[in-house]
Amino acid sequence: MKNSNILAVDAMGGDFGPSVVVPGALKAGQKCGAKILLVGIESAIQEVLDTLPDDLKTVDFSIVHASQVVDMHEKPSDILRQKKDSSIQVACRLVKDGKAHSVISAGHSGACVACGMFIIGRISGVERPCLATIMPTKTTPRLVLDVGANVECKPHHLFQFALMGSAFAKDILGYEEPSVGILSIGEEEGKGTCTVKEAYDLLKVAHNINFVGNVEGRDIFIGNVDVIVCDGFVGNIALKLSEGLALSLFDILKKELLGNGLLPKIGAFLAKKAFKNLAKKIDYAEYGAAPLLGLQGSSFVCHGASNSRAIENAVLMANTYLEKGTHNRLLANLKENEELTSYARSSV
Amino acid sequence: MKNSNILAVDAMGGDFGPSVVVPGALKAGQKCGAKILLVGIESAIQEVLDTLPDDLKTVDFSIVHASQVVDMHEKPSDILRQKKDSSIQVACRLVKDGKAHSVISAGHSGACVACGMFIIGRISGVERPCLATIMPTKTTPRLVLDVGANVECKPHHLFQFALMGSAFAKDILGYEEPSVGILSIGEEEGKGTCTVKEAYDLLKVAHNINFVGNVEGRDIFIGNVDVIVCDGFVGNIALKLSEGLALSLFDILKKELLGNGLLPKIGAFLAKKAFKNLAKKIDYAEYGAAPLLGLQGSSFVCHGASNSRAIENAVLMANTYLEKGTHNRLLANLKENEELTSYARSSV
Repeated sequence: MKNSNILAVDAMGGDFGPSVVVPGALKAGQKCGAKILLVGIESAIQEVLDTLPDDLKTVDFSIVHASQVVDMHEKPSDILRQKKDSSIQVACRLVKDGKAHSVISAGHSGACVACGMFIIGRISGVERPCLATIMPTKTTPRLVLDVGANVECKPHHLFQFALMGSAFAKDILGYEEPSVGILSIGEEEGKGTCTVKEAYDLLKVAHNINFVGNVEGRDIFIGNVDVIVCDGFVGNIALKLSEGLALSLFDILKKELLGNGLLPKIGAFLAKKAFKNLAKKIDYAEYGAAPLLGLQGSSFVCHGASNSRAIENAVLMANTYLEKGTHNRLLANLKENEELTSYARSSV
Repeated sequence: MKNSNILAVDAMGGDFGPSVVVPGALKAGQKCGAKILLVGIESAIQEVLDTLPDDLKTVDFSIVHASQVVDMHEKPSDILRQKKDSSIQVACRLVKDGKAHSVISAGHSGACVACGMFIIGRISGVERPCLATIMPTKTTPRLVLDVGANVECKPHHLFQFALMGSAFAKDILGYEEPSVGILSIGEEEGKGTCTVKEAYDLLKVAHNINFVGNVEGRDIFIGNVDVIVCDGFVGNIALKLSEGLALSLFDILKKELLGNGLLPKIGAFLAKKAFKNLAKKIDYAEYGAAPLLGLQGSSFVCHGASNSRAIENAVLMANTYLEKGTHNRLLANLKENEELTSYARSSV
């Protein structure tokens, strides 16, 4: 059961801090056998540990003290300069120094990206690491990337997102030959921005990629594609829009069900299980984290509102990433397409 | 009841052609008193007319024959060059020639935009007309623009979208001082692409605009903003994503409700009314059409899947637009901010 992976978990991250991160991380450690490093203010972590059942405390873990806490309103650049002893910086340095293999944080996502890039460092040849999110749908989950690390992208950036996303989807989502599409405003070749069109041209001739062309906004949820590539501006808007719309539809339906006399109330009561199943199906906590792809080590960024189960699943995903050797698959995909990337980079 | 507005309706447009467009347009004519010009193949229109109840035929209308039909797969530029006698071109020429005040079409939206721009013509000083769509939400409807007419935009284009959208939202959605936001990836000033940041700077000092700053993807459905400005690439993806996600959520819920034995089925039966109300609340047919803003005349583009009620509402919206003098309000907004626009245009 025990394995040699060491996972650095930012215990102070997220809206609920150690109270959800510590139990979530330890439960994951119990399941996967990796060693867990709980990074943060020791006394705060210890306080939570004291409340946990004994069996969780038999997990292989240790506390790495980090004295500073990051505020959600601080600028990533300020955090990088001024918060050298924050849990996120300390966790990233553990990876940088080879004392951990992966970092998992539900903290300030801008800080996670900045610390990932400047402390862990980028893969050689990758200018832009990107955040990939797993979108649950009514059929299979989709990987959408970038969802916010890069506001403006060049064609070769999108190209590398596709290469890295394909490797991730293969190992972590288990798709044999993940289909990869570029998000645009029409399926036909030649639709979209200049950047999209040039990325299309690169992907058309890429090695080891199952490129299916342009996909549209609706394809994220009802189309037939596994990996969807876009710049971080579009991806972030798509992600937040989806959250907002799903919440809004639930809310309307709830009001409608409760606001119309007795019969609908009975209906709502009886349909409750169906709603629960739906909620489970589209629950982000199922996947737990957005991987930050393109770093020399691995890094997983969780939703700020993560509950204990989301943290647990995020840590398990980080462990699977290491066990499957996804980093090497990602490097291989990049390597095989190095010439194309260089060509595109030089022609910008 | 009768008024002096003349509305040219593309009878051949949409997935269902004259069979839904003709009754929808005539019902609107009956309600608002505008004169309806049914533009398309005369025999096909007559065939539908023969099936309609007599009272609809007492509406003030006439048929304007147009011999060509546009195929959904044709390129807008080809339609413009080769389909001079298509219903959409003939309808736009009626507006250009002053024989109608507005055109309403559920046809090829690319062709509607192209014919609008090159036949009806742009307002002087407006480089980029844009498509605005009304998004129903759980509270008040929102206006989102551009949703696909302009793939790449400059800051002064976004600026003018805001000016025109604000005028439209005031008259047609009835908001006293519509709040206007730019779609970005963070609420703080300085978040987003360079284009977004420059448009932000313009809107901050604009005349007669209730600018509220950046809004995020989730704000389209759950935020507190009336008009949301973005480029046509982002807007189109947001629009289609919303359609896809809403469909997908309904579908999952339906399956869950029907797939779990007798009790949930009873629940579903009882909750039916609630679902119906929800569907009505988020039904695009409620608003019928996306106005194409920035033309010398007015043009309304309907969803290809429009039913008769959507067409009716689109025609009624076109009539309201004329009755309220929205075009003049739009011109006034543009005029008041002319200097700012010129300044921004010259500094690109």
